[in-house]
Amino acid sequence: MLYSELVGKTKKEAPKDEESINAKLLIRGGFIHKEISGAYIFLPLGLRVLNNVVRIIREEMEAIGGQEMALTALQNPESWKTTNRWADDVIDIWFKTELNSGAETGLATTHEEPLTKLLTQHISSYKDLPIYLFQFQTKFRNELRAQGGLLRTREFLMKDLYSFNKNKEDFEKYYEKAKQAYIKIWDRLGIGDQTYVTFASGGSFGKFSHEFQTVCEIGEDIIYIDKEKKIAVNKEVYNDDVLKELDLKKEDLEKVRGIEVGNIFPLGTRFSEALGLFYTDEKGNKKPVVMGSYGIGPGRVIGTIVELSHDDRGIIWPENIAPYKVSLIGIGKEIEKKVQEIYKELEGSEIEVLFDDRREVTPGQKFADADLIGIPYRVVVSEKTEDRVELKKRDKDKTELVTVKGLIKLLN
Amino acid sequence: MLYSELVGKTKKEAPKDEESINAKLLIRGGFIHKEISGAYIFLPLGLRVLNNVVRIIREEMEAIGGQEMALTALQNPESWKTTNRWADDVIDIWFKTELNSGAETGLATTHEEPLTKLLTQHISSYKDLPIYLFQFQTKFRNELRAQGGLLRTREFLMKDLYSFNKNKEDFEKYYEKAKQAYIKIWDRLGIGDQTYVTFASGGSFGKFSHEFQTVCEIGEDIIYIDKEKKIAVNKEVYNDDVLKELDLKKEDLEKVRGIEVGNIFPLGTRFSEALGLFYTDEKGNKKPVVMGSYGIGPGRVIGTIVELSHDDRGIIWPENIAPYKVSLIGIGKEIEKKVQEIYKELEGSEIEVLFDDRREVTPGQKFADADLIGIPYRVVVSEKTEDRVELKKRDKDKTELVTVKGLIKLLN
Repeated sequence: MLYSELVGKTKKEAPKDEESINAKLLIRGGFIHKEISGAYIFLPLGLRVLNNVVRIIREEMEAIGGQEMALTALQNPESWKTTNRWADDVIDIWFKTELNSGAETGLATTHEEPLTKLLTQHISSYKDLPIYLFQFQTKFRNELRAQGGLLRTREFLMKDLYSFNKNKEDFEKYYEKAKQAYIKIWDRLGIGDQTYVTFASGGSFGKFSHEFQTVCEIGEDIIYIDKEKKIAVNKEVYNDDVLKELDLKKEDLEKVRGIEVGNIFPLGTRFSEALGLFYTDEKGNKKPVVMGSYGIGPGRVIGTIVELSHDDRGIIWPENIAPYKVSLIGIGKEIEKKVQEIYKELEGSEIEVLFDDRREVTPGQKFADADLIGIPYRVVVSEKTEDRVELKKRDKDKTELVTVKGLIKLLN
Repeated sequence: MLYSELVGKTKKEAPKDEESINAKLLIRGGFIHKEISGAYIFLPLGLRVLNNVVRIIREEMEAIGGQEMALTALQNPESWKTTNRWADDVIDIWFKTELNSGAETGLATTHEEPLTKLLTQHISSYKDLPIYLFQFQTKFRNELRAQGGLLRTREFLMKDLYSFNKNKEDFEKYYEKAKQAYIKIWDRLGIGDQTYVTFASGGSFGKFSHEFQTVCEIGEDIIYIDKEKKIAVNKEVYNDDVLKELDLKKEDLEKVRGIEVGNIFPLGTRFSEALGLFYTDEKGNKKPVVMGSYGIGPGRVIGTIVELSHDDRGIIWPENIAPYKVSLIGIGKEIEKKVQEIYKELEGSEIEVLFDDRREVTPGQKFADADLIGIPYRVVVSEKTEDRVELKKRDKDKTELVTVKGLIKLLN
């Protein structure tokens, strides 16, 4: 990609109404743009990052048997009334609206109700189970205050997976499998070290649900982490009994702030019983399906990564999700042809490269923009580099001279 | 994929409230499910078809220089008030709602306003042009009556591309390029023969816009087609002057119904002038950017294809967008192991196969389901086929015996 043609240029200043580091850097870098408070446009660079995050999550969901589908945003109130989640004093983040034909509707904040209802048409026997369905779908949540840039928004893409099992035992096995898949996802996204499986309230069903909390100062949650055991306890369930049950000692725990990048939640039979999702077991008995839900917000993940991985100059993307792998800069008119050739050679080798081909901009400005955008490798071509190019990793100071062949080999 | 595990089984009967062929067959085949009137859930099979359509459109949009991004559904009313498109008596299909913080908002029916507004931050000089941006984004349109299954819905994915040029000449060149890209898309989707470039009203700007109308009885529009010249005229602009201008003769035209599968629309400077999208040209003069918009609804395209391509037994998918390439059926317990092996061999050769592994179902029912789902190739394994398999195309009656090796070669 030629930087001169890319829509979404860098800015010197972030908008004054943005306080979080992730919003400031993502807006300055040309990744996102605020449409209204809590709803961000993804510019081409931002969409590339988002797609990379989505791809990784999708692969791991498919690896644990998830089938992808897409539910709707517009909701039929009936199912929600049945589970008592339609009223605004029960769920206070509904966006409600009305069809021109007169009927009431609302924008899905989550999707347990429509999916459970739908599956009553598809599940009748134990032979139809288990079922694991997931989607990447836009959620709308009418938060009183959107805050923290991409961390808490009113409109956002969410991966939600739902599990449907015959019984608690099968559910628990799958729940554990999903937990492991989540751990793998954080590793692939480059935040594995800072992300803790966190015991949190299980709500009306089980004792616990599990959050995945990434340690970060801007986080809304307070958690107690055991670095050794790599688990944490959310403040909401932090008490002596729980610590004893989890075999944790107060003196081993550190109180920190965390961002909830994902959660997995046992739903039991709350929704299946309310909405009539039963199956006939091997002995002919009618039983409610045991459910679980498993969420990740890719946008929040991106915000978290930027909060954790940046310096004074800008973002430092983990390689797996960077919008491009290489940022290419030429210095001096003399090497214009040469750098063009290198650009073509890299693209020909299927290396994703952002070539800063601007003529009216100084090398210093190009370096600054490359650092702000945060692409993992910077390649500089100048007369000084002779038949080689200068290679620098975004997160290191060291530069080295390599041949183009060597570069391609290194990056492939 | 094992059919026994696929979520979304076939149904004998379509819901009584669905009148269109596409809704009936897509629901019966397990592709979609109606959440509310005008909003359909895409089940795994349906999402696979949708993704195939999206992939083809994306490739062609990138081929004409489009950069992908993603705008938001929630809208800031300000830009819409500026262009006088916020009021319900101007645009009567808004879904309006309110933020908990008190501010008014609405769900985007289209995206000219936010994108034009956004680009005022990115375009200042002639050097910043042209710009071509597109997205696949959910549109919400509060239609009084949703109808025709996927043909007119209240919530649907839309590909919208917007062009930003320096002047009318550059715009017109791009407009023509986009027109050609659209023609290529219909060809790749298998509806090229029935789809006509159709002259329609240009609205407040130019004389004409162009619709792409697919000839089909269920279509909402009346068009006059010239089969020889492969162009058409929408009833709304059908008059002697227009026919003369287009060099068409009444006696060559046939009056038919069409489904508008796409449209391309000159916007002139209506939005750029209203929202302040100006640039400085080579001579230092300030000028408004010349815009165009280009839409395709992938869901409507799917509905159209089903309307055109089906028989008494079910859907007949064009190969390019079929959810799977092969439907595999084994007859008899004796060959269970053999058909398993063939399944693995096909999957190993990266052929997308839906294996009907159900045991409690008769071969007749499996054949009926395969026909209903409409996968292009059906492969049957039985004792009768000996060391070969029976191959049949969905749209042909002829069967032939081929070796597994031959089959893989044919399908790859």
